[in-house]
Amino acid sequence: MTTTTDVEIVCVGNELLIGKVENTNGHWLAKQATQLGANVTRLTVIRDTLTEIAAAIQEALARKPRFVITTGGLGPTFDDMTLQGIAHALNRKLEVNAEALEMVKQRITEYCREHHLPAQMDLTPPRMKMATFPQNTEPVHNPVGTAPGARVNLQGTVLFALPGVPQEMEAIFTESIEPLIVEAVGGYAFYERSLNINDLVESRLAPLIDKVMGDYPGVYIKSHPMQTHIEAHLTLTAKPNEQPAQKLQSASEELAALIRQAGGRARSGA
Amino acid sequence: MTTTTDVEIVCVGNELLIGKVENTNGHWLAKQATQLGANVTRLTVIRDTLTEIAAAIQEALARKPRFVITTGGLGPTFDDMTLQGIAHALNRKLEVNAEALEMVKQRITEYCREHHLPAQMDLTPPRMKMATFPQNTEPVHNPVGTAPGARVNLQGTVLFALPGVPQEMEAIFTESIEPLIVEAVGGYAFYERSLNINDLVESRLAPLIDKVMGDYPGVYIKSHPMQTHIEAHLTLTAKPNEQPAQKLQSASEELAALIRQAGGRARSGA
Repeated sequence: MTTTTDVEIVCVGNELLIGKVENTNGHWLAKQATQLGANVTRLTVIRDTLTEIAAAIQEALARKPRFVITTGGLGPTFDDMTLQGIAHALNRKLEVNAEALEMVKQRITEYCREHHLPAQMDLTPPRMKMATFPQNTEPVHNPVGTAPGARVNLQGTVLFALPGVPQEMEAIFTESIEPLIVEAVGGYAFYERSLNINDLVESRLAPLIDKVMGDYPGVYIKSHPMQTHIEAHLTLTAKPNEQPAQKLQSASEELAALIRQAGGRARSGA
Repeated sequence: MTTTTDVEIVCVGNELLIGKVENTNGHWLAKQATQLGANVTRLTVIRDTLTEIAAAIQEALARKPRFVITTGGLGPTFDDMTLQGIAHALNRKLEVNAEALEMVKQRITEYCREHHLPAQMDLTPPRMKMATFPQNTEPVHNPVGTAPGARVNLQGTVLFALPGVPQEMEAIFTESIEPLIVEAVGGYAFYERSLNINDLVESRLAPLIDKVMGDYPGVYIKSHPMQTHIEAHLTLTAKPNEQPAQKLQSASEELAALIRQAGGRARSGA
């Protein structure tokens, strides 16, 4: 019932591991990919360290997901090392990519115009850095910021590197990755439903969940203890012609009935 | 200048990879450990799958951090599999842990009393499950919820498993892990400072950051492009007798001066 379109996410940035910034990029990507019907199998957060980046990318590729998406580390500063990390992981040389360089130039021109700054068009080392790509890597249009994304087609896996600035990451994903995931997923979609439960401890709920999951193959039910209640979250990745919404509703109704028999209360959630 | 107290975090839960729940646990742990002077080297998010949990724990242990902390997967439902995953990763048998079983019983009694429920004290399989530990694993007191945490002492690394409910995870961390990190860190602490920058593109800022980092060994400076400005975040992990606050202030002042020379604006941030 589940799709085989696996996605791994690798988020690069010290700020995520010192707790300065919440990993909203990772959360956003995981949600988007799931809603598109893909199966996000792992998310790894690493520091801005060349060996760590290369290792995490190699490890992700070894698990053979359909897509690996990295965020962060594409900018002009010394610690933006994702493209170097990819080169290292794939044992490819780095070279100035002519198409990427054009993209960088164009964005700097636009940026200076928008911000009423004098055109600062000299190609300093930090700017050349944003256009220095591993060999055989395609730059990916960044509709919002300066640093282009990167795409590497590998055997069975497409690797994308996106910037860490959320608006840029989101814009590139929507423009260049979403259509590929939709195509790979091939008509599957993600469905979900919630049931809010009171007056029943989780250890009493557990066997009821087992029962309903047995009765509805493909439906996954996970219980989440909240402050005031337990939420049972029912999910299903299926094709529309498999009547997924109806299946989830029936499963939810059966679970609610079992909960009431056991002395608890259950009502449909958001 | 950096400490060698490395911490890895492994967060278990489908809800994190389908984008249903933000990984506030991972963020909280990363921040706490950093503020205590430790070095969080990696955070891995995986699904509720036995093989995935075991693999992620083995991989984390192979990197030999001082601490590995997992969150999630300790509850009573079928997909709470972290203790099984640890047993699998360490090639240890699972057995009912008498001390853990006492903890579970006591918490259920308290829970039923607090919620005015009839005492539901039968030790059903889901309840026994929360007390079924890998051999040679210590249960860790959970001051808030039912499922005990777990602690395994390994060669050079202490592995902790914490529940996924944030209040429980935080309470166990504060009571049982924080003192160990403080001891391991041995007097180091984390210091930070911010500078907010306008009218200078990041590629012009990059060489100024390089200069200041060269002048102040141990000070790490990372630039973060925000909506309205660039934030330069200066951090330092050091002992108090190394005058870290003064060092950060001097580094920040030098960077601000260089930014002004280059035509930008800089002011101290939060």
